Amino acid sequence: MIIIGEKINGTRKAVAQAIRERDTAFIQELARSQSEAGSNYLDVNAGTAPEREAEDMAWLVATIQEACDTPLCLDSANPAALRAGLELVTHPPMINSVSGEKPRIKGVLPLALEFKTDLILLALDDEIGIPNSSDGRLKIVDRLVALAKEGGLAEEKLYIDPLVTAISTGTENAIITFETIQKIRAGYPRCHITSGLSNISFGMPLRPLINQTFMAMAVQAGLDSAILNPNDRKLTEMMLTSEMLMGKDRFCQAFTKAFRSGRIGDVKPVKFEA
Amino acid sequence: MIIIGEKINGTRKAVAQAIRERDTAFIQELARSQSEAGSNYLDVNAGTAPEREAEDMAWLVATIQEACDTPLCLDSANPAALRAGLELVTHPPMINSVSGEKPRIKGVLPLALEFKTDLILLALDDEIGIPNSSDGRLKIVDRLVALAKEGGLAEEKLYIDPLVTAISTGTENAIITFETIQKIRAGYPRCHITSGLSNISFGMPLRPLINQTFMAMAVQAGLDSAILNPNDRKLTEMMLTSEMLMGKDRFCQAFTKAFRSGRIGDVKPVKFEA
Repeated sequence: MIIIGEKINGTRKAVAQAIRERDTAFIQELARSQSEAGSNYLDVNAGTAPEREAEDMAWLVATIQEACDTPLCLDSANPAALRAGLELVTHPPMINSVSGEKPRIKGVLPLALEFKTDLILLALDDEIGIPNSSDGRLKIVDRLVALAKEGGLAEEKLYIDPLVTAISTGTENAIITFETIQKIRAGYPRCHITSGLSNISFGMPLRPLINQTFMAMAVQAGLDSAILNPNDRKLTEMMLTSEMLMGKDRFCQAFTKAFRSGRIGDVKPVKFEA
Repeated sequence: MIIIGEKINGTRKAVAQAIRERDTAFIQELARSQSEAGSNYLDVNAGTAPEREAEDMAWLVATIQEACDTPLCLDSANPAALRAGLELVTHPPMINSVSGEKPRIKGVLPLALEFKTDLILLALDDEIGIPNSSDGRLKIVDRLVALAKEGGLAEEKLYIDPLVTAISTGTENAIITFETIQKIRAGYPRCHITSGLSNISFGMPLRPLINQTFMAMAVQAGLDSAILNPNDRKLTEMMLTSEMLMGKDRFCQAFTKAFRSGRIGDVKPVKFEA
């Protein structure tokens, strides 16, 4: 599983404040803790203030790279902010994201092609938003993959997001995502499939339980990457277990190692000697 | 999900003792608690002492039926014990099980046909044991379903067990079960698919975690019944959540109801007023 750590996101209140106050220690701690928890990429979202976003993105990239070597996933719809980040990164980056929306195709896709980045593709556009069927989502994916490949990006560099909508607003919503994943996997066996997971449980009680279960089922459908909190112990358990059950953990070595190191399993209470 | 409560099993030490000592209260408490937890059937296994099994089965059936109205799943390879149970049951029963093994086909199948019971079919035989591929298991299933249908049992009365072997002994073992489930679902859309789940985690640490994850993935593959401990709260959570995500819980009503009644979710510590 290719993990994209989600925590450095300027739409979160504490992160927005840290960006505003140039709180290096706070950002670097988020970078380090997510890297140590096994992130393959760190998502970097500088927030939504267009007049400051490029400058904030540049500061974030420089600050994070002082703390760790994990590649970055530059998360913006703003070409200027993306370019500011792309000119500073020291490891091959990812861009989050291009969709079927015209401004993204015109403004973001050319940057991915110019810098030959990894690239997240979202199965939505500006005509219908998020299609309510796997076939509708595939149609957009087909178009975006074709554009990226014509521009010179290999399928291996593409991370397709099937999109996740809340089960509370539609009984079929998880199935639509699973089917979309299965069809992407069948049609583009060399592409990656990534997604945030937590939208599935919006408006429901027991959100962690729903997110964990959804993770296992999405892995079974063919998800091989996720945008998540890598410090979430229960989600990590579900990820390692579902990958093991899908035959991706030879001799159960990754699972067993994670158990022995205490990364998964119940945290034992510390015993004090009398 | 059609739940077959697994606890009244004479191969478990405490149950064996209760049977030997005719401990009515113990058996009836197992029957009641499993029924209240939502069992659709209660498995009844009288143990493995051939000289006493028929008499023990009769006592168990009578004892359980005094305590609850849940249909019984008579679990034996011994035709005499099965007949003793079948002659006493007051609700349409299930038999557990017929496999491709000759004694089962000769001794157990005729009873299922005579009493028109629901019937569990195991994907194994006495030539190769449990086949190491989904195609091998399907071949046995094809033969058993044909025999049962020729004998007059409708597909709706058949519960096919794809069989589960330990992930610790083969990295592909869960996938073989998932594929077997998918092929049964495609070939016999009106049959049920049932299984015990806990074999998957044999020899591994964190067995409950592995069993829960496996449950979600098996439900996604098409499992619609399971032989399990219905009082296992975490397994119940995973079952309700995975069925909801598979679109089988309209408006999330079953999930929400289970949450509101306290059947799923963390048990809150009782508060004492000062």
